Amino acid sequence: MTRKHIDATLVRLGAVMSAAIAVYFMLGQGSPAYAGVAEETTFVLNTFSFLIWGVLVMWMCAGFTMLESGCVRTKNVSVICLKNIGLYAIASLAYFFIGYNLMYVGVAENGGWVGSFNLFYSSSEAERQLLSGSVEDPSDVISNGYSTMSDWFFQMVFVATTASIISGTLAERVRLYSFFLFVLVLTALIYPIVGAWTWGGGWLSERGFQDFAGSTIVHSTGGWAALAGAILLGARRGKFRQDGTVKPMPPSNVPIVTLGVFILWLGWFGFNGGSQLALGSAVDVIAISNILVNTNIAAASGVIAALLVSKPVLGRTDLVATLNGAIAGLVSITAGPDIVDHQWAVLIGAVGGLIAVFGTLLLDKLKIDDVVGAIPAHLFAGIWGTLAVCIAAGGNIGVQLIGVVAIGAFVFVASFIVWFVINLVMGLRISEQAESLGQDVVELGIEAYPEFIAVPDEEER
Amino acid sequence: MTRKHIDATLVRLGAVMSAAIAVYFMLGQGSPAYAGVAEETTFVLNTFSFLIWGVLVMWMCAGFTMLESGCVRTKNVSVICLKNIGLYAIASLAYFFIGYNLMYVGVAENGGWVGSFNLFYSSSEAERQLLSGSVEDPSDVISNGYSTMSDWFFQMVFVATTASIISGTLAERVRLYSFFLFVLVLTALIYPIVGAWTWGGGWLSERGFQDFAGSTIVHSTGGWAALAGAILLGARRGKFRQDGTVKPMPPSNVPIVTLGVFILWLGWFGFNGGSQLALGSAVDVIAISNILVNTNIAAASGVIAALLVSKPVLGRTDLVATLNGAIAGLVSITAGPDIVDHQWAVLIGAVGGLIAVFGTLLLDKLKIDDVVGAIPAHLFAGIWGTLAVCIAAGGNIGVQLIGVVAIGAFVFVASFIVWFVINLVMGLRISEQAESLGQDVVELGIEAYPEFIAVPDEEER
Amino acid sequence: MTRKHIDATLVRLGAVMSAAIAVYFMLGQGSPAYAGVAEETTFVLNTFSFLIWGVLVMWMCAGFTMLESGCVRTKNVSVICLKNIGLYAIASLAYFFIGYNLMYVGVAENGGWVGSFNLFYSSSEAERQLLSGSVEDPSDVISNGYSTMSDWFFQMVFVATTASIISGTLAERVRLYSFFLFVLVLTALIYPIVGAWTWGGGWLSERGFQDFAGSTIVHSTGGWAALAGAILLGARRGKFRQDGTVKPMPPSNVPIVTLGVFILWLGWFGFNGGSQLALGSAVDVIAISNILVNTNIAAASGVIAALLVSKPVLGRTDLVATLNGAIAGLVSITAGPDIVDHQWAVLIGAVGGLIAVFGTLLLDKLKIDDVVGAIPAHLFAGIWGTLAVCIAAGGNIGVQLIGVVAIGAFVFVASFIVWFVINLVMGLRISEQAESLGQDVVELGIEAYPEFIAVPDEEER
Repeated sequence: MTRKHIDATLVRLGAVMSAAIAVYFMLGQGSPAYAGVAEETTFVLNTFSFLIWGVLVMWMCAGFTMLESGCVRTKNVSVICLKNIGLYAIASLAYFFIGYNLMYVGVAENGGWVGSFNLFYSSSEAERQLLSGSVEDPSDVISNGYSTMSDWFFQMVFVATTASIISGTLAERVRLYSFFLFVLVLTALIYPIVGAWTWGGGWLSERGFQDFAGSTIVHSTGGWAALAGAILLGARRGKFRQDGTVKPMPPSNVPIVTLGVFILWLGWFGFNGGSQLALGSAVDVIAISNILVNTNIAAASGVIAALLVSKPVLGRTDLVATLNGAIAGLVSITAGPDIVDHQWAVLIGAVGGLIAVFGTLLLDKLKIDDVVGAIPAHLFAGIWGTLAVCIAAGGNIGVQLIGVVAIGAFVFVASFIVWFVINLVMGLRISEQAESLGQDVVELGIEAYPEFIAVPDEEER
Repeated sequence: MTRKHIDATLVRLGAVMSAAIAVYFMLGQGSPAYAGVAEETTFVLNTFSFLIWGVLVMWMCAGFTMLESGCVRTKNVSVICLKNIGLYAIASLAYFFIGYNLMYVGVAENGGWVGSFNLFYSSSEAERQLLSGSVEDPSDVISNGYSTMSDWFFQMVFVATTASIISGTLAERVRLYSFFLFVLVLTALIYPIVGAWTWGGGWLSERGFQDFAGSTIVHSTGGWAALAGAILLGARRGKFRQDGTVKPMPPSNVPIVTLGVFILWLGWFGFNGGSQLALGSAVDVIAISNILVNTNIAAASGVIAALLVSKPVLGRTDLVATLNGAIAGLVSITAGPDIVDHQWAVLIGAVGGLIAVFGTLLLDKLKIDDVVGAIPAHLFAGIWGTLAVCIAAGGNIGVQLIGVVAIGAFVFVASFIVWFVINLVMGLRISEQAESLGQDVVELGIEAYPEFIAVPDEEER
Repeated sequence: MTRKHIDATLVRLGAVMSAAIAVYFMLGQGSPAYAGVAEETTFVLNTFSFLIWGVLVMWMCAGFTMLESGCVRTKNVSVICLKNIGLYAIASLAYFFIGYNLMYVGVAENGGWVGSFNLFYSSSEAERQLLSGSVEDPSDVISNGYSTMSDWFFQMVFVATTASIISGTLAERVRLYSFFLFVLVLTALIYPIVGAWTWGGGWLSERGFQDFAGSTIVHSTGGWAALAGAILLGARRGKFRQDGTVKPMPPSNVPIVTLGVFILWLGWFGFNGGSQLALGSAVDVIAISNILVNTNIAAASGVIAALLVSKPVLGRTDLVATLNGAIAGLVSITAGPDIVDHQWAVLIGAVGGLIAVFGTLLLDKLKIDDVVGAIPAHLFAGIWGTLAVCIAAGGNIGVQLIGVVAIGAFVFVASFIVWFVINLVMGLRISEQAESLGQDVVELGIEAYPEFIAVPDEEER
């Protein structure tokens, strides 16, 4: 049973039951306690839910773009913009050409490890007949619970999110086309395989692995792939000085970093809310209400926790750490935003915020250069969130650990190999000269802010 | 009866009636004129309405952030970003910990002045049982009209809006943590008390005070709190010159100011549209249609009015005044966007736009320094909007005046005391040196645009 | 029959039929295959669809603003911001005062060429009675399929989009108030007349012209009006050098250009999805799912196609061309996003992306100066999309050509005359000095980024 199929079945049962109850009362067999949602209405609402929340998730790509283009130095801003719009386009097409089938179609038949290798994905035959008018009775279509392509749309925007995480970590030094090639493999193969194990109904799903909207499946997957790349690529030139100190490379445009975080926060309501996968019943919409509230509370707690520790731990009230605290709070709650007690969301988000701050220090210690702090916020907080589900809502900690480790090992090793091969074939890293002059001038021939006179970097002084 | 309870009752009655009518016709007692919305469908739609419009209102925080960070000088941009993300986090948590209960729970029992002082707010028992599966019949839940936490979510984003108004007025001189402390008191106590009197069903509500989405309750409340702070803080150094002239301190980043206004305009569709508090019937959705149209027309009229008077009154075609005209138009219509005649929206918004322009001149006369023009746009236009309801839709002008004065007096005095105490305890205003160097460097140790060479301010020259 | 009337009728029939089928089964005349959407629920969902998708389309105005204000040089940024917020305000009011009536009311009675010249538009009498409580039975209202003003709102945001296209092309040289005057004529007269011929049910609609969401009606209309203006205005000073080379005038702020494109992409889901004009049935929501998927795929293909050809054709990996490829992909699919085969969307979007690249080269050849590349992306790709419908879904190529040519000729000639008259009366082009100093300083007296020291333009050096 897959994320979507399980839900389709539940949705179907729910709709039939409430329709039956409603009809029962309407026909005078009892007093009409309430009229349930009609099956077709449920179908409409579930489908619309995928679409409208999916649109908000798509918007997260703009959030990552603003966050990342504000965080890098001015000389690399245009390239990061291109990487972000490019990765969304690649993810859209790769998931259409093969990714979705690999993740959701026939996973059980393939032993729970991977879906089918068919090309393309499209509306069900029943839907096409209904649209063309050759069939008039929509009951076959309605029994699916939602329209085929609305689910594709919602799953597709998740793939893009995964890819967005990576562009931030590796900014300012990875070659444009090498990055695009990695994104192609990630979105066509690596992510769909992880998805097949879990939401596709594969072996981890069978064992009861819980990850509601993807703390591990989306965010840690992105984080592991970024970590593999960061290790192979090495740090930006001059980042870790010979004397052991770390050269600050502050954001070049703070308000758009902040805008990016607000966009992500907004988009996360779609990310988590839409992951209820249904809207057409009282139970579903109550669940979505709780999910949005928990999502918001966890993010707020992440902000406050990161803000409060930044002064004692980092030596200053740190805006970037605080913003990253919001993201870490959001990632942390993502594995279980449907848990009911909102007090838990306060705790889960706050710990997430702390993880973002201390994780950043850890990476500096390890001399791993993560331009936007994506590894702490998405990978570390993602692991925490996946385990925190058990604390808050009583899952199986062993299964959660197996999921975290198995997905982590697979994604890290697969990504490492892909990065390694790309490095051999076409090179991963831009030249020293390109790093000094900036990717914008060297790879694109433009500057992001050509009319402003810039302070020369210390190395150029 | 509270804003939500009144509506829940109406919603319930409406749903039962239309279901009854529908069943009546369906059972062959007459010809089926139409089939009404089923009760559970109404519940789903009402709840979804709170969530999706609430998401748009949350987005307004990003709008204020862009507007304000574009309006301040570059040396204070990062701090205003931190203030805005911080205030949203504080508002979220304060409203969760005590604010909502103080505003909506047991106001009548406490004589109509304030609600309960209980900690936390969460789903109703009926909802928890339904979610856990221990109860299968959702009729208890459905009879509430919408899910508990969806309403919390929608009310919470309103609190944040109130706090956002203040950060703009006091920018470039109020200390970061002093501001945060004020926001905590405002969102935990001051705003919820105002809310208890009105939407919570308290004494002003009993007298028939009308303020549909909060021209007074949200916007004037924010404006009065900002005014109290602005008086205590004084103007930015050098703003009002000895010779009586006003030093222009123009926006440092015009396109993000414009972006902020577009975000606010967009979010206002949620602010006003969601304040219908229901979506699940023909009447509600027709009302929301009229609300969105009036909201848009008032904003457009505010733009045109401010644009047309800016040249003769201010001496130039003034972009900032025009943008503020949009906001003032939006604030003006907010007390009564559900009035049907769209021609009134043209007038109400246009007068709002004029108020923004002349209000800014008035503040300059009074030597009150309002960095973003929030007091004219939110306080002055909010008062106008609250009174204009009577002109356009026939309310009681006496009651409207009582509401405006009572809320104004309470918020201004309470805010003044809180600002005063904060000033005594930890200081309100940054040091002269910090004002000269900028809050970003002094309070956060970063710059917003570190790579661009900036023109030195005249005082530094 | 108009775009809205045709659909209202279909919606009404659909609702009645499915209610009838549902009642039939419920009353035990057969086994209950499914319960259909109740008529009132359909009304609610259709209306809500107009509103929520309409809100996303309004957001496109912010997208154009960011795109354009990032593309122009810093000295003209504030004016383009004012043009964009102003045009949205003008379009809103012009369409309220006369535009909508001209487009949709009584077109057939006027021979299919133009609607009525009545002032204002407002809720139907039936809706007003229902809202006021003087009528309780909503069946008259419900039979319309959606609320009156929700349709007005959705159509209004389309007008604004048309006007947004023009501001980009003519940036950096057209006078502010001359531009506003043109926008007034366009949104009050020219666009509504085109709309009357097509969506209003006029002569082109009668012949079967297909343009689902406006590749021609919106985008080419904007493009033709921009082209007429660009020819009359001439190029920016120094753009086309005596030696035949083209002076590069690169975007002044790349990340906000990118943000603008993401906003447009997001808003386009509303633009195309909402153009289904209904949400309240399984068929409609399946159609919207396909529409969103095709919209996304076409944009992604536009990105990839433009990216891949930019190096060989333009000599460099070109970010701006790639971003314009996204827009061209979106415009291309807009005439037929409801076609079912997603593979066609890949092709249609990719060709659109190529058209954007080669179209830009063509304009340079013709010495037509289009600051943001709007003519290739909206006009050329709009023509392609309108014809591509036939390839993909089997329309009548002759009728499509008639529509493209008739609308093109009318809009180009009418716009040319209007621009010409404005030029005679008040002048179209800013002075040489204004062009050199920048419109911001000369027309508004402010700078967009007053604190950053700018590189002097070559002509000033």
